[in-house]
Formats: sequence, structure tokens, C-alpha cells
Amino acid sequence: MEASLIIADSEKDSNMYYATHFLAPDAFVYVGLSGKSVMIMSDLEVDRARAQGKVDEVLSSTRLSNDLRSKGILHPSLTDILEAYLKNQDVKKIEVPGNFPLEYADSLRSRGFVLSCRKDPFFEARLVKRSEEVKAICETQQATEDAVGEAIDVIKKSGIRGELLYFKNEILTSEKIKEILHLSMMKKNCIGEHTIVACGVDGVDPHNEGSGPLKAHQSIILDVFPRSSKTRYFADMTRTVVRGRASEKLKKMYAAVLEGQNIGLRRVRSGVDGKMIHQAILDYFHSLGFESGERAGRLQGFFHGTGHGVGLDIHEPPRISQGSNILKTGEVVTVEPGLYYLDAGGIRLEDMVLVQPNGCENLTKFPKVFEL
Amino acid sequence: MEASLIIADSEKDSNMYYATHFLAPDAFVYVGLSGKSVMIMSDLEVDRARAQGKVDEVLSSTRLSNDLRSKGILHPSLTDILEAYLKNQDVKKIEVPGNFPLEYADSLRSRGFVLSCRKDPFFEARLVKRSEEVKAICETQQATEDAVGEAIDVIKKSGIRGELLYFKNEILTSEKIKEILHLSMMKKNCIGEHTIVACGVDGVDPHNEGSGPLKAHQSIILDVFPRSSKTRYFADMTRTVVRGRASEKLKKMYAAVLEGQNIGLRRVRSGVDGKMIHQAILDYFHSLGFESGERAGRLQGFFHGTGHGVGLDIHEPPRISQGSNILKTGEVVTVEPGLYYLDAGGIRLEDMVLVQPNGCENLTKFPKVFEL
Repeated sequence: MEASLIIADSEKDSNMYYATHFLAPDAFVYVGLSGKSVMIMSDLEVDRARAQGKVDEVLSSTRLSNDLRSKGILHPSLTDILEAYLKNQDVKKIEVPGNFPLEYADSLRSRGFVLSCRKDPFFEARLVKRSEEVKAICETQQATEDAVGEAIDVIKKSGIRGELLYFKNEILTSEKIKEILHLSMMKKNCIGEHTIVACGVDGVDPHNEGSGPLKAHQSIILDVFPRSSKTRYFADMTRTVVRGRASEKLKKMYAAVLEGQNIGLRRVRSGVDGKMIHQAILDYFHSLGFESGERAGRLQGFFHGTGHGVGLDIHEPPRISQGSNILKTGEVVTVEPGLYYLDAGGIRLEDMVLVQPNGCENLTKFPKVFEL
Repeated sequence: MEASLIIADSEKDSNMYYATHFLAPDAFVYVGLSGKSVMIMSDLEVDRARAQGKVDEVLSSTRLSNDLRSKGILHPSLTDILEAYLKNQDVKKIEVPGNFPLEYADSLRSRGFVLSCRKDPFFEARLVKRSEEVKAICETQQATEDAVGEAIDVIKKSGIRGELLYFKNEILTSEKIKEILHLSMMKKNCIGEHTIVACGVDGVDPHNEGSGPLKAHQSIILDVFPRSSKTRYFADMTRTVVRGRASEKLKKMYAAVLEGQNIGLRRVRSGVDGKMIHQAILDYFHSLGFESGERAGRLQGFFHGTGHGVGLDIHEPPRISQGSNILKTGEVVTVEPGLYYLDAGGIRLEDMVLVQPNGCENLTKFPKVFEL
């Protein structure tokens, strides 16, 4: 018989969580047999796993271990336990995810099992979101929009003195805005990490999280992507604002990114290749004279993908980028073009949409306003 | 030549973060050559990696890819890139961590490389904390103690009506206490997840996070283990309190756990086997008549380890438990015995200590008070 096998902790490994709906900080075992799913758990987790795990059977590793001891294996390893269990189930071939730990793969192969990696996504079904998954993503998105609303409100109300922004007589910083975002989302059990509030030249590097005083008349990118502690689903949204007056170049870049995003949003539908969407936006930027590539030793222009799937991972398939990727109904993807130039700053706009047969449903309701 | 190799994202994989001090949400490549450490990064991360990564060299995967294209490989895969780079460096043997992804291991082996897993810990040095690492752990611990102080203060000030606790005229719940803990820690850039506030029978399952109203006269376990967003280091502390009057059995259990913990704290020092410490506490509980094992289909008594290492992972080596593990100066470990009985509730006390040549330094300053 063939089985699928995961050994991972479900706090870090989304396939494990998807398979078991059970959260644990230490690695445990999931076995998918034909018509039966099984978890093998330590003493510390076995009772909770029986109560919460969405599998057919929860086995105690201590019991399996004791069985082996009674057969003369003094210190049974996890491989010993797995070998005994899988042979008992008449399993010879095992499919594992691409990130399966080599250590266990080598030891299982040495016991005669035939292991092969199933290409990502390990669970094809993870890409196409069920209605309760879309609902969970929308809940996280609502917490995101509420928080970004609070943050933008503070930026809008800040005063301008010289180059700097002031709020309640203090210099307004990237750190302060992140605190506002994180506390707001935490109240809704959503955890923001690596949130980006990047002003001016910081924003030219798309993954620079930003730091220090926010400046007047410069672009501020807010890229916010919390995970719900409750449902484990992420959301993802980016807005770019300027407090004061944007330069002419920044205004042109914003208009281009806004229209570039609309080009993307109009093209997203089931059956379309993400590659064509990405290329259409690149072509549009090119037609306006916004070139992409290395300049002065730094990547500038539009040099990241247009979008990615969102779910139990913040970045999951499908991708909307240079590689080919046919979109399917029920996938949740971002559409997030950007333009970045050292002499102007960075602009990025990101919405999250649900792919439909004849288009897409935009799950993001938050307005797009540039100058505040 | 021999190389070490990691392919992982550093937000989830602590070895990768330890090797590079660079945080990224998508998998990237670390290569350790004799006398040179290298990262291979996508366009999106390469500039930030050059600014922030603590390695000798940051290579652009796009450039390496373009080199291969110019040699006729149309769509270079990561394996193509790695093969070309490693062969160029005259690497034949590669050491990888136990959790190295099987997918890449198989493809590298098929290109002729000899891969072997180095036994955990991949970086032996990770166990012994440098002074700046101890400082980072203590900072996270301070945020933890401040938060637990706020939470216990609320429990202490709550009123008792019937079986329930009330705070500001509302029923005091596990969720409310977790909110207080999480917001307090978030203000110090520390993220608490899966925090345990478990009352009564919930606390008998050591990993039950707790939910619903907190009850008077029952034990409430607060197990708080946030990670600093800034330094990435965890801290870990547990206190158990009762608002009102504890039963005689609970009081005896608390006294036993407190003395059990002291037995542990007195024994922790460099050169001692964790197994002996764990056994000493089990023996003490046994001498008082507190037995451990399955009763009424549930594990009861003391059925988890006495402690674990704390650092970039919340659970890392060494363990103080049934398995043999010799402690070393500079390791940071928890000492956290507990007793759990369905007819009484759960008790756990946890401090975090720094192993020293002649004992240990307790990094936890928070008082232990049972009845409030």
C-alpha cells in the first residue's frame, strides 16, 4: 500500500496544519493511508490531539514504543516506531512533501521504504479555498483594514514641521505607526510581523521594513500582512501615501501603479496564465517610460512579482510573475505592482482577490488615496 | 572540498537565521565553505541581504542564472545554480541539517554530490549562549515578567461571585487575560502566541491554552513564552495562581512542585546529566505519593520533561528529561516541573536559568505566590 507522510510541527508547517487542524510547537507524525488519516503523538500532546485533531485516529508514541520494547528494542527511535507501524499497515511506498526532513527520509529508505517527493503543492486542495477559508481570510483582512485605517488617520492628522511629521508634539516614526498597526490587529487576535512602514529611499527596497522619522512630501509604503492566531489564515494589503505634496515624478509613478494594478485586476480570472498578467503590467510601465533593471548598482523599476497566493502561508502558490501559472477559481491571490526609483521613492498598491470563472472578486475594500 | 548547506526561510528556520542574521519569509540558500560564508538571494532580497546579512558574500541568483543561460541552460533551476556554484568551488561533500528538504537533497545527489546530515544541533555553538544572546533572552524575559505582573494584578483585583471571577463588572476570562498579556508584550515588540491561561481541568492538559471564564478557588496556570520581533530570542515562564482559597490537595501539589523545582534548580550545573535532575524530581513526587501515569484514560501526575533549552527556538536542546543530556556552561534552560490531577487541577512553575560551572543563575526574578 501507498501512504503519505509528514513529520513536522504544525506551527511552522502549513501542510501539517492543513492535514490535521492541530497546532503543536514540536514535530509530530501524520500518516495518510487510503481511507484513514493518523497522527502519532507524544504523551504531552496525545489527549489534546484526540480532542482537537481532525484525523481518524490518534496513536500514542509511548504505547507504540512500549510495544517495541516488549519485542526487545531497548530504545525505540521514531524511525523504529514508524517502521513497525507502516509495515503493519503493509505500506511500502511513501509520498512526502518536498520539504520532508532528509534525516528521516534516509533512515526510512534504509529500512526498505520507497520515498518520493510529491511536487508542491502537497495538498492540491490547499490552493482552492473553501468558503470557510475565504471567510477566515476576510476576517484577517478586516482586522488589517481597520488597523491601516487607524494608521493612515494618524499620518493624515500629523503636522508638518520642516521635513518631518509630528503627532501630538512628537516626531512621527515608522516604529510608532507599526505599534499602532500591531496593537490594533492584536486586539483582534491577528499578529503582524515584519510589517513594512517604509518612507522615502527605504521604500525603494520592497522588503525594507522601514525605520526612523517619517518625512513630509515623501512616499510612505504601508504593507501589512498579519496572521490570525485563531484561524491561522493570513491577509495582505499595501497602500502608499504621502503626507504633504508629492513630487511630479511620484505622482506619475502612483498613477502608473494604480492603472497597472487595474490592468492586473481586470485580467485575473480562471484559466488565465499569471505570466501574461505580469507581462501586461510590465509592458504598460514600459510604455510610460518606467524601465526596470539594475541602475547604479541597485534594482529599480518593477522588479518583483505581481502577486502570490495567500492562505495558511503568506506566500503560497499560485504566483503571478515571470513563470507560467494558470489561475483557478477559488484561489486567493494578491495583485501588487510597484515602482521604485532611488531619485523619487517607492510606490506599491496591493489588493487581495478571489479568482472567479469570469473575473475576480476584490476582497479588499480599503480606499486608495495618495496625498493626505 | 566540503561545504555546509542550508535551504530554508530564516523566519521559520532558526539555523538559517543563526547562520546569516538575515530575516526573509521565502527560502534562500546559505553555503558555508572553509573560511567563507555565502548567501544566494533573489532580486527582491539581494540588496537588503548585502546590507544586513552577516556573511562574507551575497550572490544574486539572477546573475548566476544568467551565466547558465549564456551557457545554453534555458530555464535554470535552483539545483542547476547550486550545482554550477558548488562545482566551481570544488565542493563534493555537503553537510546539511536533519531538516534539509528531501526534494533538494535528491536532486543534488543525482548530480553527484555526497550529502550527509549533521546531527542536531547543526551549529553546536547555538546551545552555548554568548553574552549578547543572554542579554536578548533577558530582555524578552523582562517583557514577559511585566506582562505576567499586569495579568496577575487583574486576577488579584477581580471579585468573586459564586464560582466566577469578575473584573470591572465583567466575567474574567482566559481570553481577557491573554489579551492583557499579548498587548503588554507587543508594546515591547514581543509576540506571544499559544500563551496558556488554563483554569481548573483545562490546566490538567499541559498544552491546553485555556478558554472561557476563570473560576474562583481553582488553579490558573499562566505559561507565557513570547519571542522578540527585534532580536528573535524567546523567553519562557510559568506561574500558577488561585484567586480565593485552594483545596488542600492543590496546596499540597503546589508545595510539592515548588520544592520539586528547587530540587531541580539546586542540581543544574555544568557536567550534570539532565536525566538525573528529572529523575530526582520524579522520585521526590513519588516519595510524597504523587504518582505519574495513565489513570482513567488520561495521563496524570508529572508526565512531561523537566526542562528544555531556550533561544532562537522556544524548544531547543538540551532537554532535561528521561533521555541523557549533559548540561554545559552557557546553556539557557527551563526548570518546570508540574503535577496534574483530574480531581484537583494543574500546577506548574517554570523558571529559566543560565547553566554555570558551579550551579546556575536564575534569569527569572518574578515572585511565586499561589493564593491571591
